[in-house]
Amino acid sequence: MSTAYELDRQHVFHSWSAQAEISPMVISAARGSYVWDDEDRRYLDFSSQLVFTNIGHQHPRVVAAIQEQAGRLCTVAPQFANAERSRAAELIAGLAPDGFEKVFFTNGGADANEHAIRMARLHTGRHKVLSAYRSYHGGTETAINVTGDPRRWPNDTATSGTVHFFGPFLYRSEFHSTSEEEESERALAHLRRTIEAEGPATIAAIILESIPGTAGIFAPPPGYLAGVRALCDEHGIVMVLDEVMAGFGRAGAWFALDLFGVVPDLITFAKGVNSGYVPLGGVVISDRIAATFDHRPYPGGLTYSGHPLACAAAVATIETMRDEGIVENAARLGRDVLGPGLAELAERHPCVGDVRGVGAFWALDLVTDPGSKAMLSPAQLADVVSAAKGSGLLPFANTNRIHVVPPCTMSDDEAREGLAILDEALKAGDAHVA
Amino acid sequence: MSTAYELDRQHVFHSWSAQAEISPMVISAARGSYVWDDEDRRYLDFSSQLVFTNIGHQHPRVVAAIQEQAGRLCTVAPQFANAERSRAAELIAGLAPDGFEKVFFTNGGADANEHAIRMARLHTGRHKVLSAYRSYHGGTETAINVTGDPRRWPNDTATSGTVHFFGPFLYRSEFHSTSEEEESERALAHLRRTIEAEGPATIAAIILESIPGTAGIFAPPPGYLAGVRALCDEHGIVMVLDEVMAGFGRAGAWFALDLFGVVPDLITFAKGVNSGYVPLGGVVISDRIAATFDHRPYPGGLTYSGHPLACAAAVATIETMRDEGIVENAARLGRDVLGPGLAELAERHPCVGDVRGVGAFWALDLVTDPGSKAMLSPAQLADVVSAAKGSGLLPFANTNRIHVVPPCTMSDDEAREGLAILDEALKAGDAHVA
Ligand SMILES: Cc1ncc(COP(=O)(O)O)c(C=O)c1O
Ligand SMILES: Cc1ncc(COP(=O)(O)O)c(C=O)c1O
Repeated sequence: MSTAYELDRQHVFHSWSAQAEISPMVISAARGSYVWDDEDRRYLDFSSQLVFTNIGHQHPRVVAAIQEQAGRLCTVAPQFANAERSRAAELIAGLAPDGFEKVFFTNGGADANEHAIRMARLHTGRHKVLSAYRSYHGGTETAINVTGDPRRWPNDTATSGTVHFFGPFLYRSEFHSTSEEEESERALAHLRRTIEAEGPATIAAIILESIPGTAGIFAPPPGYLAGVRALCDEHGIVMVLDEVMAGFGRAGAWFALDLFGVVPDLITFAKGVNSGYVPLGGVVISDRIAATFDHRPYPGGLTYSGHPLACAAAVATIETMRDEGIVENAARLGRDVLGPGLAELAERHPCVGDVRGVGAFWALDLVTDPGSKAMLSPAQLADVVSAAKGSGLLPFANTNRIHVVPPCTMSDDEAREGLAILDEALKAGDAHVA
Repeated sequence: MSTAYELDRQHVFHSWSAQAEISPMVISAARGSYVWDDEDRRYLDFSSQLVFTNIGHQHPRVVAAIQEQAGRLCTVAPQFANAERSRAAELIAGLAPDGFEKVFFTNGGADANEHAIRMARLHTGRHKVLSAYRSYHGGTETAINVTGDPRRWPNDTATSGTVHFFGPFLYRSEFHSTSEEEESERALAHLRRTIEAEGPATIAAIILESIPGTAGIFAPPPGYLAGVRALCDEHGIVMVLDEVMAGFGRAGAWFALDLFGVVPDLITFAKGVNSGYVPLGGVVISDRIAATFDHRPYPGGLTYSGHPLACAAAVATIETMRDEGIVENAARLGRDVLGPGLAELAERHPCVGDVRGVGAFWALDLVTDPGSKAMLSPAQLADVVSAAKGSGLLPFANTNRIHVVPPCTMSDDEAREGLAILDEALKAGDAHVA
């Protein structure tokens, strides 16, 4: 039992947990695709922690940039200008579609969504926000209220002005669809009806993850996001795409929205922007929305907006990802190794009901009955997770799913090593198939 | 015109601003009590940026700790345990009153208050939160709704469950008081009436800054916070003290609440905890409230909760402040230099209506008429600010006030240098006195 563990149990209050019922693994070192616990056991990181270390652990160029910036200038207040902040904003705006010039920096994903929604409300003069049931947008008041997953329930403010609808998800279709085309069409019809029923003129924004992540990694079917764009245009609604998890290489593209050829009005980001080496998030703002605040003060802010150390880490991360072709590696890894490899696992393991994903962003939907698609229970899933951890693999698990979300820098060999461990671990899932 | 400036104007969206109407000063270097702009002009920092660089700029020990930790382990996800996080939690809990063992880490002050309020709501099963009109608690939805200053207006959610009351503030008394004792008594009677009128059993929490900061730096009169504590006990209301600005040395004490001998149920912090070198905030949780979440999951979280780099900076900051007697220096500086020096300025300058403060936490309340206490207008205040900046002093300005909030490490000579510049700059204020 290490001091780190004991002090954690005495003094650290953990997110999303019953404090007396957890027993957190200690991480004491990390490099590239691996982490080590306090007994020096090595684990291949198929989780990227919480899907954010896109550039891998302790990338030497990003570490050096942080060390150099720390020695030069850790922090300045947001009302000033600063070289690292300026440069990070320039680089991030450069990755967004044409017509996005400005970046508002926050500390993480939740406050990025808070501020995007505030901008949309003030831009439109409307209050309601529509979002998908299967979604996660963060833990602060507005962010948790637009969130669709059960984490919203204990925090629900009936009066928050948020309304939830069902997005497209063919494997567990709400619309009884039998093809991607049908799912797209029916989900759009459902969204149109929801907008009409809520009153188009009351709706400030629709917020969607470009590819829903924590909810299960299901890319929108062809035409869906374009259809949402058209509905937004028809009704003067601001379209917000949340790229907090899907962006910065995760989906094999700088922004996942690039895969769908759609241009929203606001893009939120965090995580991969600097692989979480220093807390950073933000909103990339379309020129039309930015113009609303040219002569009208934007009534929002935070002490660490555009933090120089965090921005220096973002600059180094983006430049390194560019120079080392890391986004391309994620795309290739998904296409050549993870995609085919996971499809093979699905063939061999009856508990794998569905395999979905792209880039370094994959989910295995685990079931006890492939016919009814009944989900593995949390306890049954725990068997799979502990088998994987026992063999040195750190997976990301949620509900009935294993997400395969390694660093975008992962090599083919490492990915194959992880797939082989999963192959064994999934037997624990198969044991629960009826 | 530097590149940093030009890129800022093209790409950086600033907090609380009309984007086309600002012209931010570039800060390109900082050390100790000084910052430099991009033309290498030096300024004495009487603002601590946004009142957060309590340990001064680029303290070598904190910088070294960040560099070392960056080289070792920048980040791990919140569900794991980690040595730096454990150690930071231990140190911070150790600074709080007895009976506070656990710390929930956030990225800044706003999310600290969001989570404190959520804990209070879940602990009590009640929804309403009472807060003071003259307050600032942050920019996310719940935090801005409890905020009392005008930044709340454009963000107001009438249904947020927040109710505002007037706290004690003798110089601009809401209660027509003529002494601190009377102000304390009348403010408590007003709070009691507000609680009764809102329904005690509907109120989850009362949140107060231990010493309101941005609203004007006015320490509560004797007995006030103890009276609030008694009202909370009487009605089962959670008492939250916001120490985001007042804590970590600012008021010449580790927590400002130490000055008043009061023990709240939750303490929120950010800023001074690591001088903002890496974004960090959090909630120190009393054992009674922590126990609520022993077997019931706490339904809140964030990706960077307990970020190792931010926690390593906090550990180094707290240890350095302890070893170098920085909290004691702030107390002494206030008592021996800033207090007497500002009192002298008040005697010499008719525009200084009131001088208030303690430690490194002072305000000059500027008026055009000492009798009516009519405030200097924003334009008139701008004259004072630009006179100060022209002479190499960076002040913190708000409404009609100049706040003197230097690093807690400031030397007597530096403080005197700043007071001398202020002495000159205040002539621009005197020119507006009727
Ligand atoms: C899509 C998405 N949006 C927002 C967030 C919230 O980000 P943070 O935890 O940094 O507040 C997350 C976190 O997982 C996310 O996945
Ligand atoms: C007393 C107080 N609480 C909360 C906050 C919000 O902190 P942040 O800007 O880090 O969200 C501030 C910021 O100035 C503050 O002064």
